[in-house]
Amino acid sequence: VLTTDVAIVGAGPVGLFAIFQCGMLGLRTHVIDSLDTIGGQCIALYPDKPIYDIPAWPVISGADLVEQLRRQAEPFTPVYHLGQEGLSLERLPDGRLRLGTTAGILLEAGAVIVAAGAGAFQPNRPPLPDIEHYEGKSVFYAISRREDLANKRVVIAGGGDSAVDWALALVGLADSVTVVHRRAKFSAAPASTQRMLHLVERGEIELVVPYQLHDLAGADGRLEALTVSDTEGRRRDLPADALLAFFGLSTDLGPLSRWGFCVDKQQVSVDPTTAETSIAGVYAIGDVASYANKPKLILTGFAEAALAARAILSKLRPGDALHIEHSTTKGVPGLGRAA
Amino acid sequence: VLTTDVAIVGAGPVGLFAIFQCGMLGLRTHVIDSLDTIGGQCIALYPDKPIYDIPAWPVISGADLVEQLRRQAEPFTPVYHLGQEGLSLERLPDGRLRLGTTAGILLEAGAVIVAAGAGAFQPNRPPLPDIEHYEGKSVFYAISRREDLANKRVVIAGGGDSAVDWALALVGLADSVTVVHRRAKFSAAPASTQRMLHLVERGEIELVVPYQLHDLAGADGRLEALTVSDTEGRRRDLPADALLAFFGLSTDLGPLSRWGFCVDKQQVSVDPTTAETSIAGVYAIGDVASYANKPKLILTGFAEAALAARAILSKLRPGDALHIEHSTTKGVPGLGRAA
Repeated sequence: VLTTDVAIVGAGPVGLFAIFQCGMLGLRTHVIDSLDTIGGQCIALYPDKPIYDIPAWPVISGADLVEQLRRQAEPFTPVYHLGQEGLSLERLPDGRLRLGTTAGILLEAGAVIVAAGAGAFQPNRPPLPDIEHYEGKSVFYAISRREDLANKRVVIAGGGDSAVDWALALVGLADSVTVVHRRAKFSAAPASTQRMLHLVERGEIELVVPYQLHDLAGADGRLEALTVSDTEGRRRDLPADALLAFFGLSTDLGPLSRWGFCVDKQQVSVDPTTAETSIAGVYAIGDVASYANKPKLILTGFAEAALAARAILSKLRPGDALHIEHSTTKGVPGLGRAA
Repeated sequence: VLTTDVAIVGAGPVGLFAIFQCGMLGLRTHVIDSLDTIGGQCIALYPDKPIYDIPAWPVISGADLVEQLRRQAEPFTPVYHLGQEGLSLERLPDGRLRLGTTAGILLEAGAVIVAAGAGAFQPNRPPLPDIEHYEGKSVFYAISRREDLANKRVVIAGGGDSAVDWALALVGLADSVTVVHRRAKFSAAPASTQRMLHLVERGEIELVVPYQLHDLAGADGRLEALTVSDTEGRRRDLPADALLAFFGLSTDLGPLSRWGFCVDKQQVSVDPTTAETSIAGVYAIGDVASYANKPKLILTGFAEAALAARAILSKLRPGDALHIEHSTTKGVPGLGRAA
């Protein structure tokens, strides 16, 4: 069991700034995130996209924003627990909270800040019977090693960038590449779609449109073929050793939604002056938190991090809360004291 | 009479960010400030001081923060009216507001955002009879041209950096330099104080401590001498052509405090979910605005700017308010559209 002052769930921009805000008030933090890296959506979905509404940054990329926030948090030596979700939450007899993660880590903290954004990212699964028995063996929603698909008959389902880019990347490596899409038009980058259609003409990629996935055939997690169908119910069987299904990501609060706070449309209601949820000692900030008139801005989450940190300090160390100083007079560890 | 969507009172960091937030929603802005330059306290009081708690800036100087915010606001072509204070506020028959400044400018706007910080800066005046008749002629609280003091008998009152730095700067130029301070210890930078004491030993500066200003003598605004007294009432007369009094700055909401909103301890009460004051259409953000549990951070003022801009849009253009987009999809004028 690890102990800390504050457990932060979510290492996106707002969670990272919560480390800093807690740190400035002398509160130590541990941080959990379902992704294997910090930065949340900024890193997972739009690392290169320009962001214009961070104060005092006329423009900054998602990746640079996360790097700046990581550096700002670093002097407070946060402990990161990545690749795992917050799973269980229980109240200890002394009023502290015990948070369990999906990786089995137990964290005891005086307070919990949920900065989970829209929740953990999950690939959208096609609704096929028994698909779970094939996942990770012959059905994949993401590729970590391209070489694993060498000499396989690969079927790719989807019409966006992931589907098209992987079709292009696997030509010449896989035994065959077949792309199944529910309509003839692709939403991938036009240049990539053109390249794919050129390879279809040359017979290097087979295009199966407009068809949708209908059924899987195989045994023990090893795919042998899959059935696709069109809108009129006509079916085709496609031999396949691997299915790559790229139907986008959905977000889901997952186990957090069962912690017991008031959740409405994947959002947690909070007191706008403290960011506290309906569970005492549990705070929610950023996109996951809702209250009247709230602007959905990263900036607003930053300000909520400051509110939550102050509310937590008042609760955990009522004496210290009277002596909150401005950073400009207090300085930051490792950066020295201001003049 | 000038017309605009939003009149912003105060061009400190929070006022500058309000230009950006309004601009992103298509609201044009005019901005008033009592100083001759934008930046407020950040520029006037601590341009070189490191600030640690601006999100995504591990450290930034006051001057750099203001420059970043100025650049971020620039695409929205704000109109600045500097060197003047907001003076009068009246409601027009159509519900719009007319704001008059101390320089005689009239601004008609759909809404007013007060981002006045602690208010306009004023030098603290020593409580001497008739001092107002000498001000600007032979009694000064700030020096714009050092040469104006050439060959004068100068008395400097105060014990901080301004007093000591000006004493050092006038040796050799003024006919005589006398420093009056109510105690023997100076609060200026130690190195500067040492240099001054060295010049005192050499007879180039006369030190009169512990004494306070007691009276002025002269006629038609021309100082001839002043009287100082110690705590036991002993007096000394000092011949003087000029008095430089450096007793720091005080801040004051000034005419704003008579606009009719609820003011308590130089702060304006606002609705924390909209930043609206008790006067409909008038909003207050940043240090001047107060509500329960508010952290006194620049960041919090930034978030309030976003709240106020949205509340103003809902009121002025209810149709537009339904279509607020994220900056990341919308882009910024002059910076192009995001990918």
